[in-house]
Amino acid sequence: MTDAEPGALMTAEIDQQPNMLATIAQNRADIAAVAEDIANHPPRFALLAARGSSDHAAIYAKYLIEVLLGLPVGLVSPSTTTLYGARPDLRDVLLVSVSQSGGSPDLLEVTQAAREAGARTVAVSNTPSSQLFAAADLAVDIGAGQERAVAATKTYTATLLSLYLLVDAIRGGKGEAAADIGERAEATLRDSADQVARAVDRYRFADRVVAAARGYSYATALESSLKLAETSYLQTRAYSGADLLHGPVAAVDEETAVLGVTSTGRGGDVMGDVLAAVGDRGADVLAVGSAASRMPAALRIDVPETVEEIAPVLEILPVQRLALRLSLARGGNPDNPRGLHKVTKTR
Amino acid sequence: MTDAEPGALMTAEIDQQPNMLATIAQNRADIAAVAEDIANHPPRFALLAARGSSDHAAIYAKYLIEVLLGLPVGLVSPSTTTLYGARPDLRDVLLVSVSQSGGSPDLLEVTQAAREAGARTVAVSNTPSSQLFAAADLAVDIGAGQERAVAATKTYTATLLSLYLLVDAIRGGKGEAAADIGERAEATLRDSADQVARAVDRYRFADRVVAAARGYSYATALESSLKLAETSYLQTRAYSGADLLHGPVAAVDEETAVLGVTSTGRGGDVMGDVLAAVGDRGADVLAVGSAASRMPAALRIDVPETVEEIAPVLEILPVQRLALRLSLARGGNPDNPRGLHKVTKTR
Repeated sequence: MTDAEPGALMTAEIDQQPNMLATIAQNRADIAAVAEDIANHPPRFALLAARGSSDHAAIYAKYLIEVLLGLPVGLVSPSTTTLYGARPDLRDVLLVSVSQSGGSPDLLEVTQAAREAGARTVAVSNTPSSQLFAAADLAVDIGAGQERAVAATKTYTATLLSLYLLVDAIRGGKGEAAADIGERAEATLRDSADQVARAVDRYRFADRVVAAARGYSYATALESSLKLAETSYLQTRAYSGADLLHGPVAAVDEETAVLGVTSTGRGGDVMGDVLAAVGDRGADVLAVGSAASRMPAALRIDVPETVEEIAPVLEILPVQRLALRLSLARGGNPDNPRGLHKVTKTR
Repeated sequence: MTDAEPGALMTAEIDQQPNMLATIAQNRADIAAVAEDIANHPPRFALLAARGSSDHAAIYAKYLIEVLLGLPVGLVSPSTTTLYGARPDLRDVLLVSVSQSGGSPDLLEVTQAAREAGARTVAVSNTPSSQLFAAADLAVDIGAGQERAVAATKTYTATLLSLYLLVDAIRGGKGEAAADIGERAEATLRDSADQVARAVDRYRFADRVVAAARGYSYATALESSLKLAETSYLQTRAYSGADLLHGPVAAVDEETAVLGVTSTGRGGDVMGDVLAAVGDRGADVLAVGSAASRMPAALRIDVPETVEEIAPVLEILPVQRLALRLSLARGGNPDNPRGLHKVTKTR
């Protein structure tokens, strides 16, 4: 496959992830140093700033920080800083800015303003030369290597894993649960190939996809929805499984494909009722994750079991491939989606 | 129109809003007492807990608290408490739980857990007899009266106005900017009738609607999207105008209706570029708000000008009516949307 072939870039970057994840898990010394600094200045609150796929990684980090560190967490609305000039007192606050490119002017401004307001700031990015890295007190290089495809794949999983390792290290862990993440990622991609191919067929003429999950995997639902929308132009939405039942379920019918992310653990367990409810409305349910085999679903994509906190790193892999193959099957080119650029500059 | 006539309940409750809002603005003594208590125990951080339409009101409150009070704010993910048992240290934290029914078990559990963890807790609800009111330290009755329609309308605007008055009172204000909100709401509904009728025609056969806004009005985009989805079964999504350009714009084309909420002020001003960008992609743009006349749009719904912080109370009114009329035009009954109940019990 040459670079010019449709999807060549995205294909290559999806396939790089098992090795990349293994390398990140093995080289966690830099992350441990950042974590030690944070642990030595324990914050009272955490704020997360991000946009796009990185925002989904930030939502994953929100669950990690709240559950594993016991800190309340807020997601920054950049416009309160950039448009309205809010300058809250941020002493005792840890601000984590997540951006693969490090090139968003609004995140840079949020980070600078937070540092001036007394926050301890950490940049998590794939671009160590970025202004964002320079602006923050501390920096984590996610080490994904250059990402050339417009649709983020490897930078997303590298960000998830880096954030997990960071939070785990802050609580004194050594990343044991992620030690074999490379092998598991490889097994995920290898063993899901047939199930993904079947889902591509099933979604060839789909129009509406609703992605849903609870807990840590909510990030996977959000990222799955974005990935399918930006590569295949499907009409997608993501919901927390609980929110879905608060109104939006009214728009779910036999024309709707529901992608339910469900891994073994507390978040995945409660998805059974959600998927049964949308199934009762005639929706076509695709269950993705290590608990998929126990879910009421028309189609399944199994993922190897892991601790629940790490499941999002694996769950998204077959969905990335589904987005890629579906885009190709629908005559698109996921490496060149209409209207998208690699770095989006908003204020 | 009798109760049994399709849409009778929703019609009546939309029309009650001008009087209701005027009453709330005039009877703010209870809110001022709650605000005084909060001002006497100044928090360092605020958390907001809500689901459904109330979640959109909570997002509005996030902007108010960050900009007007200068406090960092987080939105609670109930599952970290209810599923994962996270019990963060919440001393110096103000937790505001927003629920029109006061009947969500997860919000009750979040409120109880937060209070035990040291937070000052405030319930904002339309149901003073609810367990949520009893569980919180402080309570604000939004005073909307019984809401019988399944689609929330008057409880949404009553919640917005109550939250504005609460935050304004915490900073020592007397709600002056909202003093004439009833008259402005009446003018909004009266003067927008023809423009709403035209939008109903235009959307009769629409399938995809993307709602977008920035700043305070982002809440209106979210609520507009939900209201259209739950009454008319349109495929809708809401984005911050900035996030929309980070990927999802790829799915915007000539088949997409874009509802851009844009009121005079900083958030509305920056929507011009966003609406121009989606217009360039062929989208059918409907601009709603006091800045609509200055926006690149195929269709407009004007709203009287007000201070930017209060604009969301008015912007949603014509969109509620659009959702109602569109549902009727499409043969539905907005008072009886399939699959919806007034109180959704999730954990």
